[in-house]
Amino acid sequence: MDSAKIQKILSDLSSRKIDEAAALHALRHLPYEDLSFAKIDHHRHIRQGIPEVIYAAGKTEKQVVDIAKAMHKNSGSFLITRASKKIFTLLKIKGKVYHEASGMIGVGGSKEKAGNILVLTAGTSDLPIAEEAAVTAAFLGSRVTTVHDVGVAGLHRLFDNKKAMHEARVIIVAAGMEGALPSVVGGMTDKPIIAVPTSTGYGTSFNGLTALFAMLNSCVPGIAVMNIDNGFGAGCLAHKINTLS
Amino acid sequence: MDSAKIQKILSDLSSRKIDEAAALHALRHLPYEDLSFAKIDHHRHIRQGIPEVIYAAGKTEKQVVDIAKAMHKNSGSFLITRASKKIFTLLKIKGKVYHEASGMIGVGGSKEKAGNILVLTAGTSDLPIAEEAAVTAAFLGSRVTTVHDVGVAGLHRLFDNKKAMHEARVIIVAAGMEGALPSVVGGMTDKPIIAVPTSTGYGTSFNGLTALFAMLNSCVPGIAVMNIDNGFGAGCLAHKINTLS
Amino acid sequence: MDSAKIQKILSDLSSRKIDEAAALHALRHLPYEDLSFAKIDHHRHIRQGIPEVIYAAGKTEKQVVDIAKAMHKNSGSFLITRASKKIFTLLKIKGKVYHEASGMIGVGGSKEKAGNILVLTAGTSDLPIAEEAAVTAAFLGSRVTTVHDVGVAGLHRLFDNKKAMHEARVIIVAAGMEGALPSVVGGMTDKPIIAVPTSTGYGTSFNGLTALFAMLNSCVPGIAVMNIDNGFGAGCLAHKINTLS
Amino acid sequence: MDSAKIQKILSDLSSRKIDEAAALHALRHLPYEDLSFAKIDHHRHIRQGIPEVIYAAGKTEKQVVDIAKAMHKNSGSFLITRASKKIFTLLKIKGKVYHEASGMIGVGGSKEKAGNILVLTAGTSDLPIAEEAAVTAAFLGSRVTTVHDVGVAGLHRLFDNKKAMHEARVIIVAAGMEGALPSVVGGMTDKPIIAVPTSTGYGTSFNGLTALFAMLNSCVPGIAVMNIDNGFGAGCLAHKINTLS
Amino acid sequence: MDSAKIQKILSDLSSRKIDEAAALHALRHLPYEDLSFAKIDHHRHIRQGIPEVIYAAGKTEKQVVDIAKAMHKNSGSFLITRASKKIFTLLKIKGKVYHEASGMIGVGGSKEKAGNILVLTAGTSDLPIAEEAAVTAAFLGSRVTTVHDVGVAGLHRLFDNKKAMHEARVIIVAAGMEGALPSVVGGMTDKPIIAVPTSTGYGTSFNGLTALFAMLNSCVPGIAVMNIDNGFGAGCLAHKINTLS
Amino acid sequence: MDSAKIQKILSDLSSRKIDEAAALHALRHLPYEDLSFAKIDHHRHIRQGIPEVIYAAGKTEKQVVDIAKAMHKNSGSFLITRASKKIFTLLKIKGKVYHEASGMIGVGGSKEKAGNILVLTAGTSDLPIAEEAAVTAAFLGSRVTTVHDVGVAGLHRLFDNKKAMHEARVIIVAAGMEGALPSVVGGMTDKPIIAVPTSTGYGTSFNGLTALFAMLNSCVPGIAVMNIDNGFGAGCLAHKINTLS
Amino acid sequence: MDSAKIQKILSDLSSRKIDEAAALHALRHLPYEDLSFAKIDHHRHIRQGIPEVIYAAGKTEKQVVDIAKAMHKNSGSFLITRASKKIFTLLKIKGKVYHEASGMIGVGGSKEKAGNILVLTAGTSDLPIAEEAAVTAAFLGSRVTTVHDVGVAGLHRLFDNKKAMHEARVIIVAAGMEGALPSVVGGMTDKPIIAVPTSTGYGTSFNGLTALFAMLNSCVPGIAVMNIDNGFGAGCLAHKINTLS
Amino acid sequence: MDSAKIQKILSDLSSRKIDEAAALHALRHLPYEDLSFAKIDHHRHIRQGIPEVIYAAGKTEKQVVDIAKAMHKNSGSFLITRASKKIFTLLKIKGKVYHEASGMIGVGGSKEKAGNILVLTAGTSDLPIAEEAAVTAAFLGSRVTTVHDVGVAGLHRLFDNKKAMHEARVIIVAAGMEGALPSVVGGMTDKPIIAVPTSTGYGTSFNGLTALFAMLNSCVPGIAVMNIDNGFGAGCLAHKINTLS
Repeated sequence: MDSAKIQKILSDLSSRKIDEAAALHALRHLPYEDLSFAKIDHHRHIRQGIPEVIYAAGKTEKQVVDIAKAMHKNSGSFLITRASKKIFTLLKIKGKVYHEASGMIGVGGSKEKAGNILVLTAGTSDLPIAEEAAVTAAFLGSRVTTVHDVGVAGLHRLFDNKKAMHEARVIIVAAGMEGALPSVVGGMTDKPIIAVPTSTGYGTSFNGLTALFAMLNSCVPGIAVMNIDNGFGAGCLAHKINTLS
Repeated sequence: MDSAKIQKILSDLSSRKIDEAAALHALRHLPYEDLSFAKIDHHRHIRQGIPEVIYAAGKTEKQVVDIAKAMHKNSGSFLITRASKKIFTLLKIKGKVYHEASGMIGVGGSKEKAGNILVLTAGTSDLPIAEEAAVTAAFLGSRVTTVHDVGVAGLHRLFDNKKAMHEARVIIVAAGMEGALPSVVGGMTDKPIIAVPTSTGYGTSFNGLTALFAMLNSCVPGIAVMNIDNGFGAGCLAHKINTLS
Repeated sequence: MDSAKIQKILSDLSSRKIDEAAALHALRHLPYEDLSFAKIDHHRHIRQGIPEVIYAAGKTEKQVVDIAKAMHKNSGSFLITRASKKIFTLLKIKGKVYHEASGMIGVGGSKEKAGNILVLTAGTSDLPIAEEAAVTAAFLGSRVTTVHDVGVAGLHRLFDNKKAMHEARVIIVAAGMEGALPSVVGGMTDKPIIAVPTSTGYGTSFNGLTALFAMLNSCVPGIAVMNIDNGFGAGCLAHKINTLS
Repeated sequence: MDSAKIQKILSDLSSRKIDEAAALHALRHLPYEDLSFAKIDHHRHIRQGIPEVIYAAGKTEKQVVDIAKAMHKNSGSFLITRASKKIFTLLKIKGKVYHEASGMIGVGGSKEKAGNILVLTAGTSDLPIAEEAAVTAAFLGSRVTTVHDVGVAGLHRLFDNKKAMHEARVIIVAAGMEGALPSVVGGMTDKPIIAVPTSTGYGTSFNGLTALFAMLNSCVPGIAVMNIDNGFGAGCLAHKINTLS
Repeated sequence: MDSAKIQKILSDLSSRKIDEAAALHALRHLPYEDLSFAKIDHHRHIRQGIPEVIYAAGKTEKQVVDIAKAMHKNSGSFLITRASKKIFTLLKIKGKVYHEASGMIGVGGSKEKAGNILVLTAGTSDLPIAEEAAVTAAFLGSRVTTVHDVGVAGLHRLFDNKKAMHEARVIIVAAGMEGALPSVVGGMTDKPIIAVPTSTGYGTSFNGLTALFAMLNSCVPGIAVMNIDNGFGAGCLAHKINTLS
Repeated sequence: MDSAKIQKILSDLSSRKIDEAAALHALRHLPYEDLSFAKIDHHRHIRQGIPEVIYAAGKTEKQVVDIAKAMHKNSGSFLITRASKKIFTLLKIKGKVYHEASGMIGVGGSKEKAGNILVLTAGTSDLPIAEEAAVTAAFLGSRVTTVHDVGVAGLHRLFDNKKAMHEARVIIVAAGMEGALPSVVGGMTDKPIIAVPTSTGYGTSFNGLTALFAMLNSCVPGIAVMNIDNGFGAGCLAHKINTLS
Repeated sequence: MDSAKIQKILSDLSSRKIDEAAALHALRHLPYEDLSFAKIDHHRHIRQGIPEVIYAAGKTEKQVVDIAKAMHKNSGSFLITRASKKIFTLLKIKGKVYHEASGMIGVGGSKEKAGNILVLTAGTSDLPIAEEAAVTAAFLGSRVTTVHDVGVAGLHRLFDNKKAMHEARVIIVAAGMEGALPSVVGGMTDKPIIAVPTSTGYGTSFNGLTALFAMLNSCVPGIAVMNIDNGFGAGCLAHKINTLS
Repeated sequence: MDSAKIQKILSDLSSRKIDEAAALHALRHLPYEDLSFAKIDHHRHIRQGIPEVIYAAGKTEKQVVDIAKAMHKNSGSFLITRASKKIFTLLKIKGKVYHEASGMIGVGGSKEKAGNILVLTAGTSDLPIAEEAAVTAAFLGSRVTTVHDVGVAGLHRLFDNKKAMHEARVIIVAAGMEGALPSVVGGMTDKPIIAVPTSTGYGTSFNGLTALFAMLNSCVPGIAVMNIDNGFGAGCLAHKINTLS
């Protein structure tokens, strides 16, 4: 709906560079491929800066495999999140990689490794979500460093990684039982922080809801929060910020 | 309902030291005074270790004043929580003190100042609840130290008070927007910690609920949690622990 | 707690360039000023990239004025959020500005106006929070553009601002009844988006909670979410991202 | 309880056209069949416009089959929702059809295909609920068109279906992670919209609750909302509206 | 974004009926008026079937009056919801009407009174929301009948209005403490029912939430639900359905 | 809808004892008076055992007064709950009584005082709800005994009233912060217990919700629970049980 | 703690009818049997009117069987709720009966069948809870009548059972998706009503919570509510009320 | 970060007792071992009074075993909570003990058994959490007494254990359906009470949430509350209080 682009098409039509049909076609501005149950958006990368990634949960295995194949044929690359090992086996594509903790399957991806994203986790059980964030950002073209198990119960472990914080452009903090961690990190650095609550814990952790609210509630300015377990979204946002020129 | 005590009364009756009426009377084990709308429990101190304190919210001003007078007449001491300044004016009793931030009125109280309780607050708005805890514990007979505004956004302020933590027997941490603070304190000390969520903050602070859940959720063992804004309860428990012989 | 910095101090001490007392002093790494009810952190700018801003809600008017004066004396600048007009009147400081919709008081602030932050609102009632974000970011040193009333009920109003989206480095979207807006904006741009739910609406808007959850839930990657009504936090984060070199 | 009908019966009795017993019988106004565990209401179609449909969840397989048989014997038609494949196998009735995504079993149904209902889904995982709505409306006698995967992350996919929106009399929108979709559709059309939240998503999707609230909260007037996953109800209501003469 | 319309514009341009500038202008498909704090959408009636109504809550009195004047100047009609009596006084416009129970201000509106909408309320305290629905639908051009106080505690009062139900094309049911009412009505009629939960009641009524959930939960098919207290939305939707040709 | 009664009417008509019009009239089984905003149900006493009581909250003062007058004219009796002192002043009716704690106004009422209902309260702030229950039951014709301030913190106060429990036919327990009380009472008696949670307390009392849930959750069988603060309902039910012959 | 009983013991001791040891023993007023993991309370029947029933959920199969045997040995009777078929098989006791829908196992029970309790269910899926209530009340000694599937979607089915309502002393209404049913029943009768919400339904039924709140919220006085799925408690309470002399 | 300790190190360096490297090393105040997925904190005992215990939930079996081995090699002791029997089998370590109800594995632990902690449970299903608390406290070095099944439905069972309460220094109360128990115990003793809500029950027990809120809400001062099912935390805190000198 970009006026300039429309004007260009109109101008081309007006000057007969293109005909009516071509103009109409051009105005339907982004092509997609229709698989009947899903419309693959091959141009999303151009529009949103993130290629369409396949969220496997809630889709049948066949649907996931079909979408992956269509994408692979088009671009040679794709990323699947929340995938079972079964889907990995069903996919007959070379170069596929399975990330076990997070259940991701990747093929291709960006070769560039720009900037520097630091991913911190509070405890061992936050690892799958941290991996989802790290693999996503790397797939999109960011350099990623990961440090695990630096929760607030032993602050010295966190302090020993102050250098890594300093060298990062953006910091992702994944924590479930320790919603406090992003606040503590935020008190130590001037970098943008992306907090990802994870659904670990029991009782009043409410599957990550308490961590989510604690993170939103932080007194430290400059902390943004993602949905519970949304490592993928954190990786995307971190990559966008990291590669802002 | 103590078997030994009952046996003593029975034995006295059996040996005619006391008569039936006296025995029956003795078995109704704790006296109280009936004001029709409230039954004052003058022996609560013996039974629970805490004299009955008047919770003014939900009572009429007249009811509060009447209960306070009855207590004062009996013991020369009382403590009122959540009291308006109006009640303070209505109370014609010598030596009364009004604690403005917390809305407490005290007369008398223990003269002993035993042990050492440290009260920490995350921010200025947590001060009223911290005062409620401190005044309560002091009234009951504990020595109390208070340090304000040591939230996680500036950890060095907390670290500068490590000596105070070391010298305390029990630590009360009052925090609303920073449910994280008890965890951080708990990672630095081996003392029992009583966390009191406060109803400050906005949005997802949910009037203290997020702080409450974050505190309950802490990975650091040895943290007990009180109801939101329950500075009084924190003061009572801290005093009990502080004076355990 | 930076090893290099400690090593430098130790080395200086070891070589007698500084004495023990100076070393100890240097190691207490950041100074602050103690007002008894609040500890002002004059070096926060260095540590976190954001100078301490005064959150007036939950503080007495006198406390706010005292903190503001102490800050003004130290740096010539300060920003107060959620302030009443009364506080503005009480503050006897030159150059003070009152932002009516958001209730902010600013003095000084950065002169630099770097990069470009776009602030979008869904409806007229989201305006106060949008102003809080915009004033904050401008105070910190960012260039800010604001466009109001571009909700999804009339998408063409949003499409007419596509150029503004394209020119921004970061986009803040404030919306209460239209939690949908950040998703729609996110589908049209590759810029990092900071979504701020506002507490407008009634019934199932739950004071902004529904907008908050809808935003966290968005399928569009690259959207970060702030606490309900946290325009200040959005302004801080947008500024950090906007000025990342 | 229709006065006119009662008057007619009374009048018939008064004029001896019918006897007392017949009058009493006529006044028990709607017959039903008692299966001991369920009372089948064969006249519901007349009273409510919707024949009784069997909701299989919470019933034993035998109960479902028995009810279906009784209905089939009475009218030759029935529809079962939330049915397992096992029930489909147990049913020995000709012409039965199993709708896999939604788990519906249908026999018979209306032959008329009146008006035009458009069913839109935001993503592939909303498909089962959309199918439930579509199959129900078709069974009742409406013409139904379905378009999948037109979520807000790629608005052009939605715009390409504007003609279908224009041709519909009623629009059903099924969406889970994108509670925004009905608002966006509602901004583009003047048709009544029935929004069905689906229980897809994770974290703060709360099994469809966030979508439900977002839909109820929409600023666009003319959107009605159904219970989470209630495709059946949406199909019924759409059919009623679609066939209003 | 209607292809046909675009093709027409392109065709006109191609054949030189219009020039480039006119084509570009035409493509920005709907005009609106910019009041800086609000963008009035004069063509909404064409696009959505409902003219823009002013929701006064969350706007300053001056903003409401300015928007009303601009609308009045354009079309001679407007409707304000949730308006204070003060706004009514401030509005210097002839023919203005104040609806006291609901706080609505209307000027002009449709002269046509088509079809028939029945509005039922469970109790006296549901009256304001019922009035909001009735006034809205009448303003838009529907004939409206209202019957109050027909709650389930006295079913005979409801049965006495069966004729009114029969004559209606659509039924709106407003109920707070009696979330049951739409189900009972739904069991007696084949008309589309729009249920509006109201925020009356106490304790577990949760300001209308229980009524909302009970209505969504109804076993009777063909009931659509609106946001709590959203009489306006119910009126809009009822009007749309009522005037479907 | 009683077959026998209908048969009687039909039989009378058939044998010409009554005419058609009389029969029709008789079949509209219960008369009521229409005040336009409220339909007073004078025969409710016969149908439900409880005369219509006026719930003042959510009605205008004039509406309350008008309904009360109409009832008084019909039966000489009425009871108003949640009434302001202003309404009491506006009512020009002899013999009116104002119950201050609960805000009830009564005129007339049953003269009989049958059976025995015991009302217990945990604390002074539960008194208004206990009064609502006691006044209601007495108005309907039950003998009522009330004992205040017998909470679980001093069980001996409760034990001293064991005789009162023994003599009661039904026990009402009103408690807010002590949801435990009905369980403790239930462990000591074999009488039906009606538990009424009250909205006293703070923090996690959630305006009575915690007491409500705790009461519903009790392990002691034979406890029924009312809505929060529903003293009126408790009084009605206790009266019904108390007067079961 | 009954004064009279104590006085009797004291009197006996004083007059040497019993010795000290016997008096002490008598004062430990109720015997129980200790199984180490559970203390069986054989005298509960005397104290609470309900013999101890075994709640199997949360206990191991062995624990359930051991408790049942101890009870059987003592009284020849017991009732187990929420029991698996496996437990039924493991129990080697004559006369045991398994109630399949509710998962109850009964041996013995009262032979008396007094009064009359009516159990109504809204739909087939509410049957297990209704059975739990009916079996419990019958076991305790009440006569019980059950009528299924009389939900509000077909009110005539309910009206046909008005005679059963009239003959009952107490009515239990079990309903999940139709929280409305107790209100409708309550509008038709003057009998005490015990409402039991069941955890059937989906979406906003919230596992019975919506039905629970709707029932608590009913405008019809005289309805008491039990915990979700607590058929056992409803049966106990109904029996207590039913057998009140 | 203890100034005194730093001064000592600086002083030693200044006086050449230690060199720069040693000083730097000393300043990294607590060593830990890095297993890549977890950082074991061998000195936590010194800092927090509690050695690191392994929380098995959310970790792979291999991770748990590896951490346990590393701990065992370092200290000869470890405790695992929420462990499956499979982990017990995989651990090839002498002296290991499996606690079946709670799923804990212990090796070594303190030999000292100091003070006296009393653990009370309301019912048989609270036993696993009580065991978690008891085993933890004993492992850390406290003497522990446990009494089961003393719920409020039979208060005499509780009264019979008054002596045990008197002899304890701290009391842990584990209860799920009976959130009332800590209040009742708190009314009988002056000892600090640690309340642990358990996730037993159904319906409105909300997996322990109701018990949690009821405990927080208690009127009896001196009760601290732990997260739902957090027997481990209760054991740690009780031990800390029990061993306060």
